[in-house]
Amino acid sequence: MDSYLIQVNGHGDHAPVLDVHLKSTGNTISPGKVKGRKPRWAVRASEMSKKTFNPIRAIVDSMKVEPNPKKAMISLSLGDPTVFGNLPTNDEVTRAVKEVLDSGQYNGYAPSVGYQSCREAVAAYYNCPEAPLKAQDVILTSGCSQAIELALAVLANPGQNILVPRPGFSLYKTLALSLGIEVKLYNLLPEQAWEIDLEHLESLVDEKTACLIVNNPSNPCGSVFSKSHLQEILAVASRQCVPILADEIYGDMVFADCKYEPIATLSASVPVLSCGGLAKRWLVPGWRMGWILIHDRRDIFGNEIRDGLVRLSQRILGPCTIVQGALERILHRTPPEFYHNTLSILKSNADVCYAALSAIPGLQPVRPAGAMYLMVEIEMEHFPEFENDVEFTERLISEQSVFCLPATCFEYPNFFRVVTTVPEEMILEACSRIQEFCEMHYQGAEGAQDLECDK
Amino acid sequence: MDSYLIQVNGHGDHAPVLDVHLKSTGNTISPGKVKGRKPRWAVRASEMSKKTFNPIRAIVDSMKVEPNPKKAMISLSLGDPTVFGNLPTNDEVTRAVKEVLDSGQYNGYAPSVGYQSCREAVAAYYNCPEAPLKAQDVILTSGCSQAIELALAVLANPGQNILVPRPGFSLYKTLALSLGIEVKLYNLLPEQAWEIDLEHLESLVDEKTACLIVNNPSNPCGSVFSKSHLQEILAVASRQCVPILADEIYGDMVFADCKYEPIATLSASVPVLSCGGLAKRWLVPGWRMGWILIHDRRDIFGNEIRDGLVRLSQRILGPCTIVQGALERILHRTPPEFYHNTLSILKSNADVCYAALSAIPGLQPVRPAGAMYLMVEIEMEHFPEFENDVEFTERLISEQSVFCLPATCFEYPNFFRVVTTVPEEMILEACSRIQEFCEMHYQGAEGAQDLECDK
Repeated sequence: MDSYLIQVNGHGDHAPVLDVHLKSTGNTISPGKVKGRKPRWAVRASEMSKKTFNPIRAIVDSMKVEPNPKKAMISLSLGDPTVFGNLPTNDEVTRAVKEVLDSGQYNGYAPSVGYQSCREAVAAYYNCPEAPLKAQDVILTSGCSQAIELALAVLANPGQNILVPRPGFSLYKTLALSLGIEVKLYNLLPEQAWEIDLEHLESLVDEKTACLIVNNPSNPCGSVFSKSHLQEILAVASRQCVPILADEIYGDMVFADCKYEPIATLSASVPVLSCGGLAKRWLVPGWRMGWILIHDRRDIFGNEIRDGLVRLSQRILGPCTIVQGALERILHRTPPEFYHNTLSILKSNADVCYAALSAIPGLQPVRPAGAMYLMVEIEMEHFPEFENDVEFTERLISEQSVFCLPATCFEYPNFFRVVTTVPEEMILEACSRIQEFCEMHYQGAEGAQDLECDK
Repeated sequence: MDSYLIQVNGHGDHAPVLDVHLKSTGNTISPGKVKGRKPRWAVRASEMSKKTFNPIRAIVDSMKVEPNPKKAMISLSLGDPTVFGNLPTNDEVTRAVKEVLDSGQYNGYAPSVGYQSCREAVAAYYNCPEAPLKAQDVILTSGCSQAIELALAVLANPGQNILVPRPGFSLYKTLALSLGIEVKLYNLLPEQAWEIDLEHLESLVDEKTACLIVNNPSNPCGSVFSKSHLQEILAVASRQCVPILADEIYGDMVFADCKYEPIATLSASVPVLSCGGLAKRWLVPGWRMGWILIHDRRDIFGNEIRDGLVRLSQRILGPCTIVQGALERILHRTPPEFYHNTLSILKSNADVCYAALSAIPGLQPVRPAGAMYLMVEIEMEHFPEFENDVEFTERLISEQSVFCLPATCFEYPNFFRVVTTVPEEMILEACSRIQEFCEMHYQGAEGAQDLECDK
């Protein structure tokens, strides 16, 4: 954690400030009022802005490499399904917003938690007997990022801690540090399809634990938890009395051979704030339409957390109203074939990618079951040239013009993440270049033995 | 200030929590690990959520009155120009968004500070020789509220203070308290068309002052500062070395007989973060499209503040991309007649309203010069029945079904605010009911003398 803070401070230090220390020199005397002493400009960025830190940006920005000019760049790094045009949203989705625009009825301020009718539409869509939802259980937000921000900000005080998956989406840590909340990382197990190490998880709980973040399906793993594993997670939460912040933005995005279970449907007692949105399933991440679903059948959150969410939402007043107004139509009119088609492309890409990477010496991909990612282990002992995943992926750019995110971005060194929304032919070309790269740098048993001898 | 905090805490106290104190009883022993002692649920809302406090909501929600069932309700309270349908946005504005939707090119993630091309469009629109702007000087935000939030969050640390106008828009205080920043209120002078009491302003500056908020044109006053007054304000900021957060969301919304001057155009030295957006001038407040314009020609903010704004923007990733994508077209294609028409309606409504209220015994409206508001003083000595502006406006609802915001919402007792976007016939009807109300409750010179005798 400290190294993060050091990096942050280091990053901000080269600012041209005329007189850095003036404002902290005197606590009682106002410089402007002392004769002969003129105040001088000394504007510093706040501590909060310095603590707000996106590790992906920091790592990627520090990768000072140029792609190989002889090969066109292929980026498998961006978790944005819209980049290549192969996964457009459905016509009904854009039509719904155009109808709202034509109506002229959604240009004014909505309540800060969203229009009542739109909250109702989301509640009705996700309502089920095991986890009933009404309009008042839905808070509409400016994207799933703000949903997670509000959920964290209402549940945790500075000095408390939250439990976050490793590997995991970097935003949890960015938001927590920004709010002065400590992050405790619990392990996911690649050899068990990225299930949670439950013993490790439970060992991290202490009296300052404010919530447990469960991300299912997972970014960056592409894993999907089984019903029984989710029940085990809930058992820990229930034993330890820790509420769950469920990041379910990839909800329902699972391949045909497995089933997605919203975690709140499996427990009547553990309170859950489930964060979701239109971004991934409807393929419009830029629209910033997210939500929090409040599941609290035992009234443990009570009015306190609900009121807190409402109050926090008043700071920036909710998501764009023309998307809010379209929500009901989007949820009802998007044809089932659209979802099926997206998933069949994602599954096919995942299969192609997994097969190609499995055949490459020194790499161990983990087969995904949903979302739009796949994690690949780099057997570093076979690549003694490279110190870590960051160096490996840097060289992959400079030699092969293929960009994958080093999993250090997700607190998980010696892996890299591949995005599976890229068109198949590009995935194949990228995999073949990765193969060429690995074959070039791979050191087999002999090399590995040499290394061991060195120790 | 304290009374606010008391109200806030009081508001959150009735939450049904099973075991409120458990989590704070032991600092070293984790309850879950002590044999025989089972942790119990104790989920509390964070301090931040309790400190986030919207005074308008608190005051309005506490007004437990029913309108007079014999009269249709007329609300002059909402600062939302779209409510009555008399001020629709321009067709070019909605057409621009529909074109963006059709293009399919703006559904993905934008950079968290906005698309480069859209930042360029805003920079080009507001660029002028006195205050040049480039794309990197523009941060796109989720509405002007988020612009103000980011500007405050980057400039001030908890424990610092900001200077805020009284009367003034309540969001400044809501955001500041939420961030642990102290608010110091400087006076506006109704008898000088709501100019700032500069001596009072300067007396409030101390070594912990992080910024000065200048709101021009003003909500709730509808006032517009002259060039010379703005220069006087800048002279204070320059002498005291305090940067300016300019809330200029009503920029350019001034009546024909006066001129709007962006404050940054009048100083080459004082650094300014100017907050604006589409909400009011383009009549689409729900779209949540705002911006910060960074004016820093002396490089006092430097990279530090710029980097801080970028980092803070990464928490929720910017405004809706389909509105971003439409920005350039909106700024270029909206016909000048649209702006003129809006202003002529606002001016005409303001005149009608001012004239009608001026004729009412016991009321003293202050003539506005822009924006969409007008403040009215209640000569409380003539209305001894009512303790304050809240009671006055409450009774106005229950007797006449007319709702105006008591200016206690803006830290300015004994005034109320009237919104001038309401259709003329409703304004006239409302004013005539206000007249009936005042005539009913007014106590003339005699009553006033009685009161004085009582003293």
